[in-house]
Amino acid sequence: MAPAIYEQIASALLRHLDAGPEVEPRLGAALRQLAVHPGKLMRAALAYETARRAGVGRRNAERLACAVEYFHVASLVLDDLPCMDDAAMRRGMPCVHRQHGEATAILAALALINRAYALMGEALAGQPRRVREEAWSCLTRALGTAGLVGGQAWDLAFAGTDRSARTVSRIAAAKTAALFSLAIMVPGLLLRPTRAERRALRALGVYWGQLVQIADDFVDVMAPGFEVGKTTGRDGRLVRPNLVLALGLPRARARLDRLTGQAARVLAQLEQRGKGRWRQFREAGETLTQVCAVREPARSAA
Amino acid sequence: MAPAIYEQIASALLRHLDAGPEVEPRLGAALRQLAVHPGKLMRAALAYETARRAGVGRRNAERLACAVEYFHVASLVLDDLPCMDDAAMRRGMPCVHRQHGEATAILAALALINRAYALMGEALAGQPRRVREEAWSCLTRALGTAGLVGGQAWDLAFAGTDRSARTVSRIAAAKTAALFSLAIMVPGLLLRPTRAERRALRALGVYWGQLVQIADDFVDVMAPGFEVGKTTGRDGRLVRPNLVLALGLPRARARLDRLTGQAARVLAQLEQRGKGRWRQFREAGETLTQVCAVREPARSAA
Repeated sequence: MAPAIYEQIASALLRHLDAGPEVEPRLGAALRQLAVHPGKLMRAALAYETARRAGVGRRNAERLACAVEYFHVASLVLDDLPCMDDAAMRRGMPCVHRQHGEATAILAALALINRAYALMGEALAGQPRRVREEAWSCLTRALGTAGLVGGQAWDLAFAGTDRSARTVSRIAAAKTAALFSLAIMVPGLLLRPTRAERRALRALGVYWGQLVQIADDFVDVMAPGFEVGKTTGRDGRLVRPNLVLALGLPRARARLDRLTGQAARVLAQLEQRGKGRWRQFREAGETLTQVCAVREPARSAA
Repeated sequence: MAPAIYEQIASALLRHLDAGPEVEPRLGAALRQLAVHPGKLMRAALAYETARRAGVGRRNAERLACAVEYFHVASLVLDDLPCMDDAAMRRGMPCVHRQHGEATAILAALALINRAYALMGEALAGQPRRVREEAWSCLTRALGTAGLVGGQAWDLAFAGTDRSARTVSRIAAAKTAALFSLAIMVPGLLLRPTRAERRALRALGVYWGQLVQIADDFVDVMAPGFEVGKTTGRDGRLVRPNLVLALGLPRARARLDRLTGQAARVLAQLEQRGKGRWRQFREAGETLTQVCAVREPARSAA
C-alpha cells in the first residue's frame, strides 16, 4: 500500500484521539504518547483499503482504520500491565504504565476502546441495517469472551492447561486472530461478500493472526529486547503460550511455512472468486510475510 | 417501578452475559459473580422504563438496561483495583480482584464493556439514522475522556488539584453523572425530546449523579464498611474528592438538600412540558431520594 496511506492514518490517529486540553494531564500525555508512536499499522491499513474498495468515503474509511488501531493499541497497553505480562518496553519506549502509572495506563486503554466503538458506530451509521447488524455482531464477537478478551484469559491461564501446541494455536486463534478478523471482516462485509468469500475472509484472518503470533513467539524466544524495542523472553518465564517453546525451533519454522502457504492459497481463491475485489489483500499478505520474516532473526541470520 | 421490572432486568443480566462453558473458568466465574449480585439497578430500571415509554419493545429495552448496568458494574470493578481505590469489599463480598486476581478483574470489566456496546448497538439498530447517531454520540461522550474515564482520571489526580468543593463537584459531574446521563439520555432521545426537554434531561442526569455521589461521600466518611457492604474511609486516606470532607458535615447536608430541590424542580418542569411522557422519572426520583437518605446514616440516626 502507498506510504501516503500510512501517513494519512497516522495523522488521523492523533486527530480522533479525544485528548484535548481539558483532559487530565497524565491521561492526555499517555494518550498522545500512544498515538504519536504507532506501530506498523498493518491492520489499520488493511481496514482502510478494504473500506475504500467497498465504496466507503475517505473519512469513514479513516474512522474504521483508527478504530481497529485503537483496539489493537489498547490490547497492547493492557497486556503489558504488571498483572498480565509485566512488560517494561514497547515500541522502543518504556510501557505506558511505567511512564504514567498503572491506573493511567488502564484509563488510557479504556479511552481508546471507547473512541474505537464511537468511530465504528459513526463509520457504519450510513450502511443498510442488515450490513450494520452483521458488522456489529462480527466486531463484538471478535473482541469478547470468544475472541480477544477470552483469548487473553486463556493466555494467562496457560500454565494450568495441557500446554500442547494445539492449545497454543487455539489461544492464538482467539487472541491474535481476533484483531485481524476484525480488520478484514468488518470492512469486508461492506463489500457484500458471497458465502464462500466470507469463509475465505474468516480463514485469512485466522491464518494471518497465527502467522503474526508465531513470528512474535520467535522474537520472544530468540531476540534480545533492545533489538526489537520491547520486552522479550517472558513467555518461558511466565509460562505463556509460545509455539516455538511448544514445538521446538524446526517444527515451529515448518508451521510458519505451512501457514504462509495456507494464507497464499486462500488469497488466490479470493482473487479468483472476487474478480479483483479483494486485490488489496495480496499486497497486505506480502507485507505481512516480510514482517514475519524480519521478525524471525534466527532465519535471517542463517 | 414495579418489582417485576427489577427481577426481569436481573435475569436479563445473566442471560446477556456471554459467559458460556467455553469461557476460561476464572473469567466465567468472575462474570457470573458480578451478574448474580446486582446492585439496586436504579440506572438500569430508569433506562428500561424510558425506552418502553419511547415505544421500544421489551427485548430492546432489556438490552439498553443491561448495557447501562454492565457499564456501571465494569466501572466499579476497575475503580476497586489496587492501583485505583484499592478496595477490598463491594456489595457485601470480596471485590472481584480479591477473589479472582487483578488480571481476571480487568478482563471481566472489558468483557462487560464489550457486551454493553454490543447490546447498545443491537437495541438502537432499528432507530432512524439521526436518532441512532445522536444516541451514539451521547453514549460515547458520557463514557470518554470528558465523562466517566476522564472523571476517574481527575479523581485519582485530586491530591494535585486545589481540592476545593468546586473541583469535587466537577469531578462528580464527569464521573458519577455520566452514567446517569447515559441511562436517561440515550433512551430519552428515542422519545424525540424538544430542545427544552433535552436541557432538562441533561440537568436531571447531573443533579442525580451528584446526589448519589454526595450520598456515597457521606457513607465513605461516616459508615463502617461492614454495615454497608463495601470498603469505606478511603477518600480521606487516599486524598480522593469527597464533598463531606471538602465542605464539612452541615454544608454538605445543605448541598444535598439543595440538589434534591433542584432535581425536583427539573422533574416538575419535565412533567409540565412533556404531558406525562416523562412520568417514570418522578418515581425514579423518589426512589433515588430514599436511597440517598438511607445512605446518610448520621441523619437517620439523628
